[in-house]
Amino acid sequence: MKLTICTIGELLVEFLAKKENQGFSSPGEFWGPFPSGAPAIFADQVAKLGLGSVLFSCIGNDAFGEMNMARLARDGVCIEGISVLPNTTTGSAFVSYRNQTQRDFIFNMANSACGLLTADNVDEQLLSNCQHFHIMGSSLFSFRMIDAMRKAIENVKSRNGTVSFDPNIRKEMLNIPVMLQAFEYILDYTDIFLPSDSELEYFGLAKSRDEPLMIERLLSRGIKHVVIKRGPLGASYYNQQSSYHAPAYEAKVVDPTGAGDCFGATFVSLFLSGYPPEQALEYANASGSLAISRRGPMEGTSTLAEITAYMACNPHPGVEN
Amino acid sequence: MKLTICTIGELLVEFLAKKENQGFSSPGEFWGPFPSGAPAIFADQVAKLGLGSVLFSCIGNDAFGEMNMARLARDGVCIEGISVLPNTTTGSAFVSYRNQTQRDFIFNMANSACGLLTADNVDEQLLSNCQHFHIMGSSLFSFRMIDAMRKAIENVKSRNGTVSFDPNIRKEMLNIPVMLQAFEYILDYTDIFLPSDSELEYFGLAKSRDEPLMIERLLSRGIKHVVIKRGPLGASYYNQQSSYHAPAYEAKVVDPTGAGDCFGATFVSLFLSGYPPEQALEYANASGSLAISRRGPMEGTSTLAEITAYMACNPHPGVEN
Repeated sequence: MKLTICTIGELLVEFLAKKENQGFSSPGEFWGPFPSGAPAIFADQVAKLGLGSVLFSCIGNDAFGEMNMARLARDGVCIEGISVLPNTTTGSAFVSYRNQTQRDFIFNMANSACGLLTADNVDEQLLSNCQHFHIMGSSLFSFRMIDAMRKAIENVKSRNGTVSFDPNIRKEMLNIPVMLQAFEYILDYTDIFLPSDSELEYFGLAKSRDEPLMIERLLSRGIKHVVIKRGPLGASYYNQQSSYHAPAYEAKVVDPTGAGDCFGATFVSLFLSGYPPEQALEYANASGSLAISRRGPMEGTSTLAEITAYMACNPHPGVEN
Repeated sequence: MKLTICTIGELLVEFLAKKENQGFSSPGEFWGPFPSGAPAIFADQVAKLGLGSVLFSCIGNDAFGEMNMARLARDGVCIEGISVLPNTTTGSAFVSYRNQTQRDFIFNMANSACGLLTADNVDEQLLSNCQHFHIMGSSLFSFRMIDAMRKAIENVKSRNGTVSFDPNIRKEMLNIPVMLQAFEYILDYTDIFLPSDSELEYFGLAKSRDEPLMIERLLSRGIKHVVIKRGPLGASYYNQQSSYHAPAYEAKVVDPTGAGDCFGATFVSLFLSGYPPEQALEYANASGSLAISRRGPMEGTSTLAEITAYMACNPHPGVEN
């Protein structure tokens, strides 16, 4: 049986400021609308790798929503879990880069169609096809969404499925109190935890920047696999017995939005498909590098063939233990 | 005492598709964010003409809202009636032109900051400074907004003030049932009614396209002044005794969004300031022509000096009785 991964959360369109430091305070030029939303990018990347991919989300009855549905369907995502909510607007996000790594966002999310998703929109029949559930921290902006996540976790875990969690923290969202509470809840069910190095401090088991200590505490609280995304420094994998570090490929940065989602989807998909962690790490790095080289958050998702070709064409940094 | 006009409603940022027929279904290029929202454009135009102008609206705690506040304040609008609502996003709209007159919109409005405005956000002290209240039909998308409008109408009318109403119908909003009901209510209090020629049919007193009959019925139900906007064909004024028609100025169409709001604000401001209707009509036409010649919905508001200069520089079509 083909492994099927489901995820729940925001399905957005994104508008990207053309210039660095353009900001949102005066008229400028933007590219868009691009299909976006971290869980949607994740789902798209999973589907492109040939696994089953189910996305639960909501869109408005508008052209933005239609575009997103058509795109996900084209790439092989099961869109039966996407509900069209009347009298709502498909969510949107505006992004302006300060430099290659820092960016500012304005989100129309919590009050958009996807922000109104409830547990009722998460169909049990569809859920029962899934062996793995992935959740992004950025999706946990409402009690409704947290309820929906709990429904999915309970369903998948009851069938001995697994759960992965990517905090995907946006500074623009940290004023949402419910989100930080939800983080504590989800960690108790997380099998594969995928933070970026800068996000570790929010999971404040250690009130320090002592990374080995933080990782040890995450593993000893029951998380089986910790994968740390380090951007241009690559990525690392830890479990109770072993650890690996895979340096990043050198890649031209065009638009890093979505790269972490592609990385995570590739790691989770290949790891669950039986790739050893050190190999999954390398494929995930290559997937992230492909993502940052293309403009548009979901434009950088890749097939396994594209990732393999990229790895064959680019200097291979190797894996360190 | 300086005449002060207040209005209530949406305060948005607008993103404008660069190409005709660009639409919202695939990535393209947009200009923006531009300050927008029909009532906000109206208020800005009133202030630029030197009258007191109070806008009641809400923004989110974000760069879009800050930009709008700064812009309105710079042009002389009293912004004390604009509330910042935490955990909301400033409203936004996306516009794509099909041709010079037809356009498609996607609105983030009803669930944005300005969509959450209630009667409580309409301060009685500020309201009591106002002798005239203007409302746009496009603002009447929620019971909350309709309550706020009723509060303003009652306050202004109790002091023998007057009310103007511009339907400003967007096809994207006609699925909001409460809006059509509100239209019936507001007509009973309207002193100056400012529909476009194509909007007349929605005020279905006559189930026909017989314009003279429709105007006669509007006047006989108690509306004192009917001003019909005819776009490139100019504008007409009707009361029980007389009527005037002012042909439009010839103007290069760059971006017609906001032109009707500038026209309405200029007509209402000058008419209430004592200009005879035929003269107010000509100034309003000139104001509308200036508006369509500039990109951005609020970028086309003009001072009285700019309107006068425009009229002096351009062939003067004259007024017909």
